Amino acid sequence: MRVLFHLPLSPYSRKVRLAMAEKGIPFELRMERIWERRDAFLEMNPACTVPVLREENGLAVADSYAICEYLEEAYPDTGLFGRTLAERAEVRRLVAWFDGKFAAEVTSHLLYEKQLKRLLGRGNPDASAIRVGYANMRPHLEYLGWLAETRPWLAGPRISLADFAAAGHLSALDYIGDVDWSQNESAKQWYARMKSRPSFRALLAERVSGLEPPAHYDDPDF
Amino acid sequence: MRVLFHLPLSPYSRKVRLAMAEKGIPFELRMERIWERRDAFLEMNPACTVPVLREENGLAVADSYAICEYLEEAYPDTGLFGRTLAERAEVRRLVAWFDGKFAAEVTSHLLYEKQLKRLLGRGNPDASAIRVGYANMRPHLEYLGWLAETRPWLAGPRISLADFAAAGHLSALDYIGDVDWSQNESAKQWYARMKSRPSFRALLAERVSGLEPPAHYDDPDF
Repeated sequence: MRVLFHLPLSPYSRKVRLAMAEKGIPFELRMERIWERRDAFLEMNPACTVPVLREENGLAVADSYAICEYLEEAYPDTGLFGRTLAERAEVRRLVAWFDGKFAAEVTSHLLYEKQLKRLLGRGNPDASAIRVGYANMRPHLEYLGWLAETRPWLAGPRISLADFAAAGHLSALDYIGDVDWSQNESAKQWYARMKSRPSFRALLAERVSGLEPPAHYDDPDF
Repeated sequence: MRVLFHLPLSPYSRKVRLAMAEKGIPFELRMERIWERRDAFLEMNPACTVPVLREENGLAVADSYAICEYLEEAYPDTGLFGRTLAERAEVRRLVAWFDGKFAAEVTSHLLYEKQLKRLLGRGNPDASAIRVGYANMRPHLEYLGWLAETRPWLAGPRISLADFAAAGHLSALDYIGDVDWSQNESAKQWYARMKSRPSFRALLAERVSGLEPPAHYDDPDF
């Protein structure tokens, strides 16, 4: 069976899970405690990050960028990158926006400080970093809301990996109660549409041991 | 004319310049002072980063990941991503390694601290960050050297974007005199092969105003 090595709160794992569910590619989910630095895992991915996809033929694909481009080439039905060169450039620009800029300015200040830092044994959360994360989230929600208002989906006419990259980060942050959806109604409506998709069900049903999400987390009408 | 907006020491701009030169795609190079946040540039790339590629038909492609994938789709002759799915996964894993992990652990501690921070008006270099950058470079040069020893090129049998991503970072760091090539002979030999390629010439001939590179910078037999 195809295996996706993941962590439940990794935005990059979530992006890949959503993309695979949308494409209808079956897979088994296996949690990888990256802080244990398992030898067999390091062989597949020396960077020791999740997600890593292992195909039935043994091919290991490491890094969520490499996995998503691989999935698009290996399973081209239900394309998630757009049709024209211009659409594809816009999808990838926004994937880079969320996985690069949003990750550095928001996710790393909140999810890393509050959750991953402890697991990796790198000390206590830094309160000033957390404040920066909250402050940075507001303009990002505004930009996301503006995209959602002016286009059917974030990157254009079709749902794309840009939506799933954004949903990966926001759903993980929402799980730890860190998204104030009242800040932007259009962003909230876009996320409600995302949550209603069948591909989102497994994510919303999953629970991290010892950490309950807020009541609205799995409610599409939040 | 096709225009690439860039900064001379940006590793991501360098990767794209090398890729375009290898593919034989002509372009005009235009320096973009991103700290001036020019309106017309922000319209092409709200993230306000270089590189941005503007095609003759007006299409703007922002972010080096989006640009490289775009170039591969729009100009498929001289492919830089490998042939099989497995080769392509390995190329992209290593591009992510250099543009993500190496960038965060090495480049950001040296190039950002010493050069970009001042230009962006974010204060003085942090000496402890610079020490961390030097310390992190050693294991990275070892990994690069190991790849170069065990394969014809970094990602496998053919030269690929993985080599150009790595060369983008290392050539920018070499310009500011921050690479101690004596640390790894195989990494040095790989870089000598890279420097000898015609695609590298324009990079090595370029000078940043007020900042001279070390004497070995443009010498392929360094």
